[in-house]
Amino acid sequence: MTKQHPLAIGLEGIAVAETDLSLVDGINGLLVYRGYWARDLAIHHTFEEVAHLLWFGHLPSEQELTELKNKLKANRELPEHVKGILKLIPADVDMMSVLRTGVSALGSSSQGFPPTIDEVIALAAKMPTIVAYRFACLEGREPISPSPELDHTANYLYMLKGEKPNSAHVRALDAYLILTQEHGMNASTFAGRVVGSTESDLISSIVAAIGALKGPLHGGAPSEVTEMIEAIGTKENAEPWLRSKLESGGRLMGFGHRVYKTIDPRATALRVVASELSADDPWFDLATHVEKVGLQLLDEYKPGRKLNTNVEFFAAAVMRAVGLDENLFTPTFAVSRVVGWSAHILEQAAKNRIIRPQSNYIGSMPE
Amino acid sequence: MTKQHPLAIGLEGIAVAETDLSLVDGINGLLVYRGYWARDLAIHHTFEEVAHLLWFGHLPSEQELTELKNKLKANRELPEHVKGILKLIPADVDMMSVLRTGVSALGSSSQGFPPTIDEVIALAAKMPTIVAYRFACLEGREPISPSPELDHTANYLYMLKGEKPNSAHVRALDAYLILTQEHGMNASTFAGRVVGSTESDLISSIVAAIGALKGPLHGGAPSEVTEMIEAIGTKENAEPWLRSKLESGGRLMGFGHRVYKTIDPRATALRVVASELSADDPWFDLATHVEKVGLQLLDEYKPGRKLNTNVEFFAAAVMRAVGLDENLFTPTFAVSRVVGWSAHILEQAAKNRIIRPQSNYIGSMPE
Repeated sequence: MTKQHPLAIGLEGIAVAETDLSLVDGINGLLVYRGYWARDLAIHHTFEEVAHLLWFGHLPSEQELTELKNKLKANRELPEHVKGILKLIPADVDMMSVLRTGVSALGSSSQGFPPTIDEVIALAAKMPTIVAYRFACLEGREPISPSPELDHTANYLYMLKGEKPNSAHVRALDAYLILTQEHGMNASTFAGRVVGSTESDLISSIVAAIGALKGPLHGGAPSEVTEMIEAIGTKENAEPWLRSKLESGGRLMGFGHRVYKTIDPRATALRVVASELSADDPWFDLATHVEKVGLQLLDEYKPGRKLNTNVEFFAAAVMRAVGLDENLFTPTFAVSRVVGWSAHILEQAAKNRIIRPQSNYIGSMPE
Repeated sequence: MTKQHPLAIGLEGIAVAETDLSLVDGINGLLVYRGYWARDLAIHHTFEEVAHLLWFGHLPSEQELTELKNKLKANRELPEHVKGILKLIPADVDMMSVLRTGVSALGSSSQGFPPTIDEVIALAAKMPTIVAYRFACLEGREPISPSPELDHTANYLYMLKGEKPNSAHVRALDAYLILTQEHGMNASTFAGRVVGSTESDLISSIVAAIGALKGPLHGGAPSEVTEMIEAIGTKENAEPWLRSKLESGGRLMGFGHRVYKTIDPRATALRVVASELSADDPWFDLATHVEKVGLQLLDEYKPGRKLNTNVEFFAAAVMRAVGLDENLFTPTFAVSRVVGWSAHILEQAAKNRIIRPQSNYIGSMPE
């Protein structure tokens, strides 16, 4: 008789790794990156500093930070064939498919197993360029070369928008990117680790992760949040609009998270950082008002459910506030999450064991 | 306190799905595809018939078979931008990276969730064309257009070699492809299902699977088998060469399988089919002799270990015999396995639940 295995569809509640990278505690609303509150990191540190923490295990000294920044800057340019590929993909192909193909095209025979930290840095440096290059093609303008004067987040905004970004925008986006760099064993990170566990290369793992993030159950549908806020339109309209939605049994977009049963710690940090922004940004101002009213009404209509603002709400709020197109929301999530993905892939490789579960056959047997 | 989860690194022995697709029983040496012995399918059926079985749940009627063949034929041509991309990738990029990028480039906004059977057929139809197109570019010749007169396997060989293949070659390769179409919940299939479980699209799932198959722990290193057989060179040299290898503590390439602790049922079928081939194929003749002697000697030197011929041995033997370049071994494996991958992704989508395990944090906590 063929052996049947214990069944764990969805793998809920099963740990597939021990990790030093992050603690995601949805019950208590905690998010820790390597011994630091992600919230504090987002408020007091920069994209590069937190990436250094995740990749190397500690916050950088001044010299280490300079080295990392220089390496990222030196690796931003895309190979010519990747530029050519980004131009060849038809205009109606969605941005996540383009990013997946663009990253895949960075693969080469020289990359193998185990992946190296230099490969990781080079890839993280190029992901924003891929997104911005393609976005420029779609807008029918010449892609803007990366600026060696600008740090990671500022350069990303610069390449996307064609002008030097203001510092409040950079800071808000930087905080958002820091808070989404890493988030435990989510589906995209897991897909990347499964691929890496076969001793495949970094690019193959990241391409798998991008494909998983593309799925709405994971990467979400952030445009639904912007659509809701735009439909609301004014602060005065927030309460009647949201109340009418809830009265008719509708769902508020951007509230409730599969993991966080209490407050999403990322929300706290983004509110702090965004306070600099909201004064001169009416859209962000409206979004934070919608959030406040939404939380009050959810408490009134669905008491005890603890439906809090989720990361999609903030993705929409921050990215719209800094002027990013909706098509860029999930790709920008990938631009930050590649830090966590690659840190997980390095961790997997350091103590590798192939991830190879079973299935139980429930079909018929030959006669 | 943050909850710790039961740890299952590698997920060995845990079933992540119930499946109708295949039974892989390594202990008893059984391989069943949807109620049929894979061995019998390889001997008595064709690539398209078995693909129909895996995709639709039953062997096709004559009319169903004609329909499937026509759909496959109608979908073989690559979009122009994919051809352009395959030409742009530098010549030194390995074939699996190229295949990953080529398949990714087939993605478009029109593909979503759930994937459709038509998307599945269109993709399976194009994978051989991607491999053959790129191979022609590397050889510096004009790629050969798919021939609507030829069935799947014959057309693949035709596009690769530029001439109509002989029927013994087609039959041997067809049997190999049938026997590798599906194999339970291996790492590449699992990677594809994890990606699909986020409600991502078919292309994203298959791209993840290709990336996993690229890893030597999964897709193997089939060239090591050909190198061994070429080093042996003649039938007379087989016993002394293999004996000397074992005496010096070396490992014989192509023997021993992680799953099959007894005979690999795929070996039995390939031996039957290949008997037609070996008469006029000295290389295959040598390979089967090496296999026979290898098994005898392994029994002598490692009694009780039951190290049997694995699928890599047959991959090498069949593909070399039909004249395929070593760089094509793993891509050809992907050309067949895409049938099983896509059948699994359809199965996952039909009863989807996100595959989202946990990790246990073992780093320090903030002060």
